[in-house]
Amino acid sequence: MLATIIHAPRDIRVETVPDPVLSTGDDAIVRVVAACVCGSDLWPYRGITPTREPHRIGHEFVGVVEQVGAKVGRIAVGDFVIAPFYVCDNTCLNCRNGVSTSCLHGGWWGVDDRKGAFADGGQGEKVRVPLADGTLVPVPGGVADAQVPGLLTLSDVMGTGHHAAIAAGVRPGDSVAVVGDGAVGLCAIIAAKRLGATTIIAMSRHPQRQELAREFGATHIVAERGDVGVTAVHELTRGIGADRVLECVGTKQSMDQAIRSTRPGAMVGYVGVPNGGPELPVRPLFDRNVGVNGGVAPVRGYIEELLPDVLSGAIEPGRVFDLELPLRDAADAYAAMDERRAVKVLLRP
Amino acid sequence: MLATIIHAPRDIRVETVPDPVLSTGDDAIVRVVAACVCGSDLWPYRGITPTREPHRIGHEFVGVVEQVGAKVGRIAVGDFVIAPFYVCDNTCLNCRNGVSTSCLHGGWWGVDDRKGAFADGGQGEKVRVPLADGTLVPVPGGVADAQVPGLLTLSDVMGTGHHAAIAAGVRPGDSVAVVGDGAVGLCAIIAAKRLGATTIIAMSRHPQRQELAREFGATHIVAERGDVGVTAVHELTRGIGADRVLECVGTKQSMDQAIRSTRPGAMVGYVGVPNGGPELPVRPLFDRNVGVNGGVAPVRGYIEELLPDVLSGAIEPGRVFDLELPLRDAADAYAAMDERRAVKVLLRP
Repeated sequence: MLATIIHAPRDIRVETVPDPVLSTGDDAIVRVVAACVCGSDLWPYRGITPTREPHRIGHEFVGVVEQVGAKVGRIAVGDFVIAPFYVCDNTCLNCRNGVSTSCLHGGWWGVDDRKGAFADGGQGEKVRVPLADGTLVPVPGGVADAQVPGLLTLSDVMGTGHHAAIAAGVRPGDSVAVVGDGAVGLCAIIAAKRLGATTIIAMSRHPQRQELAREFGATHIVAERGDVGVTAVHELTRGIGADRVLECVGTKQSMDQAIRSTRPGAMVGYVGVPNGGPELPVRPLFDRNVGVNGGVAPVRGYIEELLPDVLSGAIEPGRVFDLELPLRDAADAYAAMDERRAVKVLLRP
Repeated sequence: MLATIIHAPRDIRVETVPDPVLSTGDDAIVRVVAACVCGSDLWPYRGITPTREPHRIGHEFVGVVEQVGAKVGRIAVGDFVIAPFYVCDNTCLNCRNGVSTSCLHGGWWGVDDRKGAFADGGQGEKVRVPLADGTLVPVPGGVADAQVPGLLTLSDVMGTGHHAAIAAGVRPGDSVAVVGDGAVGLCAIIAAKRLGATTIIAMSRHPQRQELAREFGATHIVAERGDVGVTAVHELTRGIGADRVLECVGTKQSMDQAIRSTRPGAMVGYVGVPNGGPELPVRPLFDRNVGVNGGVAPVRGYIEELLPDVLSGAIEPGRVFDLELPLRDAADAYAAMDERRAVKVLLRP
């Protein structure tokens, strides 16, 4: 079978690898229907995080179950399933506390832990899924081809945008500013609207993304950054700042923008993977009672909640995909996202 | 009249100053019945924050209203009132959002803003209270002398401990660790118990404070700090860490202790005034979905909620006062707290 391997920065290859085989009894083999490239895949692609040796990559996929281990009970052969961007048992203390990304028995796709347990990456023709009963969510009924992109966003970006909104505590009537107009930021706009925010400010400098942001529910666009951007947000929020700010980038600049766009007593929900920092400046938070909450989004726990709205078309997060390529062109997909020619690329095996 | 003046580090004097006079129409003159020294008063006392010129000091007091301005309607002469540690109108956007410490028209006691508006400190025989209708909370019925210490804690430390618990989102059944055994930390224990926490871990190395912590509701004491202290908290919380951690000190070490004592998905509620930092390390927060929320406590908004429990004796925060001195001995009060001979000193004019 084919799978995507990262060898080094900017060296993405689609190669023939052995087909996965069941090994633990609680696992399943999934034939991938669609996968995609994540903004966080660009960190190793750009060399910002190291690639010590070639390994499989990709952590977002949907597909059809081909085999299940003897101990699997909730997932069956033939199910169309959504895989979150990590493996979890969905039963441990942390999973029950809503933090399945900290599952006591889970792990990450594409990460070789030297036991091979979680070594499969999602950008391949098939994936062995450990802890299949906990990790996978079956989609009831048949899945039309047009529904695939929306379902695929539940692997990561839609759940991650939703997590930013949940972590920030978005409530009906809130004013919400969203920092970042990538796929997660755009999904955060969907989430904020879905949770009842009535003023939604998208901070975006790209005309096409601004357009999609408006269609997703943004009521205002702020293209400026820095002091001018902060002032613009305050002017749109009765002069005091936004009730909730969703930080969907992960740089020092974006977190600074987020914190300064808040009103006193606000909460920043952040899901941008912090890129070598940033440290949070405590004094501006303390003086104005601004909280910071979020992290690596426990999207597994959100799939069931968001799935009906995706299936019904009430929300259309699949529109964040603006390029679709065959799996064998994965290297082009990375390049397109790296060069910002695409917001997010869907790969079809 | 007499009032306490800070001249320089370790130079606290009680001096004769002019009696306050009404000046703005929305103000009141309060005869102070009791005041006290705050842990944060020790920052200028120790020279950690500068004292550029002599000024009045103290921001916690209760007393009886002697005069009111023409525009005052809610407060009347003869009322026994509680003053929060700041001035607020209790009507502006920020006050209505529950963040009266960020009142658009308020300010701080003892801070000379060159217009004299908020220049009175609380450690004196009388105080002019600006924005009296918003700032002051009258106590219904008569106040017995034994009730005064408890009421005085609503000026700051009881409301601040409560804010830590509210910011952390303490709910019934939670496990809560409290970092800091000063007056605020002890009040945070009261607050956690009052909000329904069932496991309350007090991190304290002082036998007398440990004893009071237990009487206030702590179910466990952890005397160790650093790695050993973190391990002890985890062992008491099913191996994963506390649901909520209340940080009531404000140093880099105490915040580190707090963050490491959490379980994944937990929230740190912090009210310790950050002493020249610390910056918050984002990666350990992000990876485990640990939030940080809190700040300078908007205690004005908590007084009405906590007052009945103080009056009924359901909670006894007044027990944090372990030394009472006449106002003229204010310098001794500072020394006693600085040398940790007293948790908190009450001053009687």
